[in-house]
Amino acid sequence: MSQPDLALRNNIPFNRGFPFVEKWLLQQIFKAIGPAPLRFLFKGNGAELSPPGVSPLATVTIQDRRTLAGLILDPEIAFGDAYADGRIEVDGDLAGALQAVYESWPNGRADRSWYQRLTSGWMGWCQANSLRGSRNNIHSHYDLGNAFYKLWLDSQLVYTCAYFPSVSATLEEAQKAKLDYICRKLQLQPGERVVEAGCGWGALALHMARHYGVSVTAFNISHEQIVYARRRALEERLNDRVEFIEDDCRNIAGKFDVFASVGMLEHVNVADYARLGKVIHRSIGDSGRGILHFIGRSHKDAFSRWIRKRIFPGTYAPTLGEVMDILQPHHYAVSDVENLRPHYAKTLELWLERFDKSAPQISEMYDPRFQRAWRLYLAGSIAAFRAGSLQLFQICFAGSKSEPIFWTRAPLYWDTNRAAKDRKWIHATS
Amino acid sequence: MSQPDLALRNNIPFNRGFPFVEKWLLQQIFKAIGPAPLRFLFKGNGAELSPPGVSPLATVTIQDRRTLAGLILDPEIAFGDAYADGRIEVDGDLAGALQAVYESWPNGRADRSWYQRLTSGWMGWCQANSLRGSRNNIHSHYDLGNAFYKLWLDSQLVYTCAYFPSVSATLEEAQKAKLDYICRKLQLQPGERVVEAGCGWGALALHMARHYGVSVTAFNISHEQIVYARRRALEERLNDRVEFIEDDCRNIAGKFDVFASVGMLEHVNVADYARLGKVIHRSIGDSGRGILHFIGRSHKDAFSRWIRKRIFPGTYAPTLGEVMDILQPHHYAVSDVENLRPHYAKTLELWLERFDKSAPQISEMYDPRFQRAWRLYLAGSIAAFRAGSLQLFQICFAGSKSEPIFWTRAPLYWDTNRAAKDRKWIHATS
Repeated sequence: MSQPDLALRNNIPFNRGFPFVEKWLLQQIFKAIGPAPLRFLFKGNGAELSPPGVSPLATVTIQDRRTLAGLILDPEIAFGDAYADGRIEVDGDLAGALQAVYESWPNGRADRSWYQRLTSGWMGWCQANSLRGSRNNIHSHYDLGNAFYKLWLDSQLVYTCAYFPSVSATLEEAQKAKLDYICRKLQLQPGERVVEAGCGWGALALHMARHYGVSVTAFNISHEQIVYARRRALEERLNDRVEFIEDDCRNIAGKFDVFASVGMLEHVNVADYARLGKVIHRSIGDSGRGILHFIGRSHKDAFSRWIRKRIFPGTYAPTLGEVMDILQPHHYAVSDVENLRPHYAKTLELWLERFDKSAPQISEMYDPRFQRAWRLYLAGSIAAFRAGSLQLFQICFAGSKSEPIFWTRAPLYWDTNRAAKDRKWIHATS
Repeated sequence: MSQPDLALRNNIPFNRGFPFVEKWLLQQIFKAIGPAPLRFLFKGNGAELSPPGVSPLATVTIQDRRTLAGLILDPEIAFGDAYADGRIEVDGDLAGALQAVYESWPNGRADRSWYQRLTSGWMGWCQANSLRGSRNNIHSHYDLGNAFYKLWLDSQLVYTCAYFPSVSATLEEAQKAKLDYICRKLQLQPGERVVEAGCGWGALALHMARHYGVSVTAFNISHEQIVYARRRALEERLNDRVEFIEDDCRNIAGKFDVFASVGMLEHVNVADYARLGKVIHRSIGDSGRGILHFIGRSHKDAFSRWIRKRIFPGTYAPTLGEVMDILQPHHYAVSDVENLRPHYAKTLELWLERFDKSAPQISEMYDPRFQRAWRLYLAGSIAAFRAGSLQLFQICFAGSKSEPIFWTRAPLYWDTNRAAKDRKWIHATS
């Protein structure tokens, strides 16, 4: 049986004079990404390819045949690099375009093509994280310079998913709300000892000590972040209650009541989960409790090699099933899991907005390639959380000798509901 | 090295004239259960054994040497049977005594003795549940007679963990609150189609149709329960919107928006989880959502053979990790997990209270052996939930093409928080 013309079969309206090789290459890409509403423009000769019957979300301009061929040969690296180089441009809503690609895929259980893996989640492959390896991975991302992150994060430099009590909350409000939400989920009591594994710039540790009267020992292997966090503790005179330790959290020593980890699990290799479980159990025993806040997945999947190579080395987003390997060996009972996926999409949208507004300053600090790569990383992450290829889980757990924390979860929402009621009241009488 | 006298070594104050064999047997039991504050009385000659330095929670009276020996030879069956026979009596707080035994155990990761397994969870071993097997298992428990369950369940005959918005809620209120809580977690919309796998006496299906305007197709293999549920639907004129089907939920056919299963997963063999996942996916696809409400564990463990043999055949309480085998193959994203363990302890306390109050009626229906066996089952379950050897999980999940349900969980607690605020206001002004 002869193969019918692909453009005809797929009803793709190639314009006249479309070169044969480019046509074939674009057909392969179109076949792979499915019916995403994207217009492709081939810069070499103005040839274009539009999706049938829908108005396109964005126009993807491909500079030359070499770029197009690269997408076929090594899509995971080629797309990101070409975008960063400016050899691929996306005119329109970048995050929306990437989301459309994700959502046009079948619920790829087995037979995802090489191309579908291209943008499959945004963060980087699982890799062996020796203590030295972790240190290098963390440095390459978190030691880019506090000045860089200050341009587009909130004022406390919280580089994890925020929590928006209402959709209209600002990034500043939502990050503060997140810190407090975690403290309330943990039901911190004055005088308790908390250990934090991976503390970023120290916002959570400082919030805990400032508002909940606990002492915190916080670990991080990023030198710049630790220096910054220590200075903040000193400035706020919280340094007697918050200790920032520049060390890998696998070296945690001491006894604590509460274990907290926000945005750290993504840097731990799944093969090391048993070891992490032992660190937790060594720290808080059977009577402690804790929280794990991390980017996860609804199913096991690998990440784009591009992200791993260029942006976020050594990262993996686990499933809930995988994370149970940390907790179950020590009989830690899960008390609460919340999926904050829409909150991470919104957080990233606000980050990207601020990133774009800071473009002039960023371009003074880094070259255009770096800047475009980071735009792609942020937009791709928005797309992944919107489309559900990434999730954001908060898991609360408690030891077998620990008392249940809440009778119900209602107290977590007391303030929000009161505020909502007040707003309603104001609305009704205005 | 010679073995020192165990009573001496453990500082157990045997009274004078304690017979040698009984002494040795009791010593073995004491060694195994650890420092639980229980007084043992040996009826044959009034010999007794008390825990050193604490006032005992209950007195365990053992009738004869044969019973004592049975506890050593086959503890899992012997304790339950001897209690049911009246050859072992527990004077005092039965649930409290069993809880003390659970809690005195080390966090038995590997080397639990045969005796420690005796009361290790209360429900029954995992067993192969063929369609016919399931049917027989369900009949032996759920077809005991509606009249029996009416004596100690709430008026709607809800035989699963209740939800107490406040600790002072009655059983009646708490079961109604649970039904509504599930509907709110599912965010049911008028006109949606719900399929319920394992519907008991139909309370949830009827609540959904009555208050949320959905249509429900509910499966159950217990004939008596289905007959009862159909009559209720007719009486309430909900029979056009609720269909009760007497069939195994593995035979579910049709397309639905929502999958609900409350207290059914415990009857499914772990090896059948993949199949259950396929049933769910066949029913609600990638755009649906659902809830699984079930007795679970913080770690894999087996149940007492006695419960399996005498009370609840073919039952297993899975870990969250095991349950992910149902959801992950189909990319269902977990949106919410809540552990209602303290609520099940309280539910069971209220059931046992009503069971004891109905003792005269129950003794007219069943022999004393049955009655004592059920007391032990209910009290042992209270102990297991209090001590944390059993958990109660509600997992909400959503398909990859489904929209996230809530922006935050606050709306789930709107009424509770309003009520709490009102109560506070009344208190402040009274």
